[in-house]
Amino acid sequence: MGETDAQTSPVRTAAARVADMDAGAVVQVAGWVHRVRELGQVSFVVLRDRSGFVQIVYEGAAPVTSETVVRIQGLTAANEKAPGGMEVRAQETEVLGPAALDAPIPVAADPDGIGIETLLDHRILSLRMPKIRAMFQLQSEIVRLFAEYLRAQDFTEVKTSKLIGSGTEGGTGLFEVDYFGERVFLAQSPQFYKQAMVASGLERVFEIGAAYRAEKHDTPRHLNEYVSLDVEMGFIDGIDDLMDLELGILQHIFAGVKDGVAATALEQYGASVPDADALSRTPRIDYEEAKAIASERTGKRLFDLNPEAERVLCDWAEAEHGIEAVFVTGFPRKKRPFYTWPDGRQTASFDLLFRGLEITTGGKRIHDYDMLVGELPKFGMKPEDLGDYLSIFRYGCPPHGGFAIGLERLTQKILGLENVKAASLFPRDRKRVRP
Amino acid sequence: MGETDAQTSPVRTAAARVADMDAGAVVQVAGWVHRVRELGQVSFVVLRDRSGFVQIVYEGAAPVTSETVVRIQGLTAANEKAPGGMEVRAQETEVLGPAALDAPIPVAADPDGIGIETLLDHRILSLRMPKIRAMFQLQSEIVRLFAEYLRAQDFTEVKTSKLIGSGTEGGTGLFEVDYFGERVFLAQSPQFYKQAMVASGLERVFEIGAAYRAEKHDTPRHLNEYVSLDVEMGFIDGIDDLMDLELGILQHIFAGVKDGVAATALEQYGASVPDADALSRTPRIDYEEAKAIASERTGKRLFDLNPEAERVLCDWAEAEHGIEAVFVTGFPRKKRPFYTWPDGRQTASFDLLFRGLEITTGGKRIHDYDMLVGELPKFGMKPEDLGDYLSIFRYGCPPHGGFAIGLERLTQKILGLENVKAASLFPRDRKRVRP
Repeated sequence: MGETDAQTSPVRTAAARVADMDAGAVVQVAGWVHRVRELGQVSFVVLRDRSGFVQIVYEGAAPVTSETVVRIQGLTAANEKAPGGMEVRAQETEVLGPAALDAPIPVAADPDGIGIETLLDHRILSLRMPKIRAMFQLQSEIVRLFAEYLRAQDFTEVKTSKLIGSGTEGGTGLFEVDYFGERVFLAQSPQFYKQAMVASGLERVFEIGAAYRAEKHDTPRHLNEYVSLDVEMGFIDGIDDLMDLELGILQHIFAGVKDGVAATALEQYGASVPDADALSRTPRIDYEEAKAIASERTGKRLFDLNPEAERVLCDWAEAEHGIEAVFVTGFPRKKRPFYTWPDGRQTASFDLLFRGLEITTGGKRIHDYDMLVGELPKFGMKPEDLGDYLSIFRYGCPPHGGFAIGLERLTQKILGLENVKAASLFPRDRKRVRP
Repeated sequence: MGETDAQTSPVRTAAARVADMDAGAVVQVAGWVHRVRELGQVSFVVLRDRSGFVQIVYEGAAPVTSETVVRIQGLTAANEKAPGGMEVRAQETEVLGPAALDAPIPVAADPDGIGIETLLDHRILSLRMPKIRAMFQLQSEIVRLFAEYLRAQDFTEVKTSKLIGSGTEGGTGLFEVDYFGERVFLAQSPQFYKQAMVASGLERVFEIGAAYRAEKHDTPRHLNEYVSLDVEMGFIDGIDDLMDLELGILQHIFAGVKDGVAATALEQYGASVPDADALSRTPRIDYEEAKAIASERTGKRLFDLNPEAERVLCDWAEAEHGIEAVFVTGFPRKKRPFYTWPDGRQTASFDLLFRGLEITTGGKRIHDYDMLVGELPKFGMKPEDLGDYLSIFRYGCPPHGGFAIGLERLTQKILGLENVKAASLFPRDRKRVRP
């Protein structure tokens, strides 16, 4: 491989750090050839690494082609036209990873000029596009900030099984798995497991894990596999405790992404996030009130909060409260799963709509065994359908509730993406199980 | 539900905090009834919450039974015999979650006196046992510390799909999923995805996610679904970079679990972890040398590093280097997947054995397209079998490598558990897909 001898060469410098160096320094950089511009006497190469870019200058032709991975040693030199005002005059170039010239999409192109299906078909390459890569650096920060906030509130992170013996939310929309000849399913959510962990005495738990929905519709709002940021909390008085907690989480995430690598992503997408003050003004409106507002704004009689209603409700919240977010509470019983705490014909439940899209569903759960068993027939269910899970409630369970935030939807709405699939590294939809 | 009015009652105090209060204070505690002892004139109730225990005193009979979730208001009183020297004399008791009396296992019992299969059959209840709960509070800390260390080294957390179109490590041992009528599989590891993310320009990535192995053997070492702590790093010179990184991770985890809630778990299991100095002495020995040492110590001629060899090698490392851990390097080609960097008849690969068990497999990967394609026939594979993944290497990939730590095995070895299944919240094995 001809690795450079560490004794005689400088340590690798991040591309973005070259700008901070003095002219005339010996420097070693390594990364991907982003662009090559040959001007005859001299050639300019833009080298890309995880920190950013640096301009490399060669006398004559450049010995490298696009996407080749190289290690370059050279001397720093001031150049006003170079990124950061400093370039590297190449002395030695070592190819670490050659690149074929038949790339189906050009990595240095603007992804906004390429259709989403093409970007996803060539995902291995499109993930190299700096703007797309930045999205997933932001996503990594969202995950970090979510966990950080909850741990500070004494929540414990759990990892529960995604292979379940029976459908817990009605049995529809589940992917089947052949488990040693037995038919099991991929979990739609960690719902019962997180409830079990509250009842186990952990009281406050969160999980960051995959969730699966075998829904056949293929829309810009849906993924068949997504990352669910799940929260469940015991000893709550009602859903206001949950909405307060969610606002705290979002305030922490939004404050956090204004710094560091995540801020770069916001900048690249021309995106911004609400500040803590604005978020704290998020209105909490009843389902019927939400329908009335949406009906008035759309001029249509609505029987449901459809995607159009979600958009106009966020417009309304922006106009009336200065925040593009609204909690809708009190969903009707028939629109919520059997385990949702009933409140007359409504339920102690909520959705959070943000920038026109539902990013969270949550609610208080039924924690009383007899009450839960009594509710089952209304949903066409029998205690046997719930297997072991009823024992959560049979042996002492505190009042509790929780919610889940879809990581990809949150990313989508922070950055203003048209399609949620763009916010999944390797999205799965009706037609796509590759790459 | 008769929720206590927040205007007139004190805020809930954690059970373990009562010991820090003055006598005569009005206090409200809430949790599970752990034990009830009735002495006629007076009754003692041990109340359990996520912080620990507090003793509640009732005049006459206690109005509660085991595992009932209650909120109790009362007055603190000094009592040398109470945990922490302070108890609560109950004034008001509100049942938040009643408990049936037919619990199949007693939560207040010592789990060590109950067989693992019984504990797992009644997992919803056995997770309430404070000693078992503590294990998962430790596990939450391991996850936190793993991520914290890697983020500090500029690694990005990724979340990749677990639904894959083809088997990437030979096609055996995969669970099949019915994906809208198409046959897909649950990923055995995020191997190719993490390699793709290194090549995408993130350079350094980690993933905390589920991994699936459809292996039929049912042993105390195996789980069919486990949490894999995956790491992949670009621009490495060789596997020493990877072993150094893993030692850094483990040093950070082991230092971290000596504090806070994780320390409680160590205490309950009578466990300890190696310090940073000891870990840094972990020897790195060649596969053939490891076989020779194991052969000598077992008195058997070994053709493989079997479980017995793993145990005696850790004994050897303890005796010779004062650390119960050893890196075994240079595994033969036929023992490693096709993507492992070859080194004559051996490979640039390693296992980490810790306390008698392999907890990590890692290695340098082939990053050169032509070399990788050239290796495939030796493994009976064709480029078409690899689908999109070859494009990782076709368009410029840096030298890289990585490893994965099994979360449950690490937990098992930290605490000295006999069976790895005990370290999974809801373990899946040949016969178990519930609860």
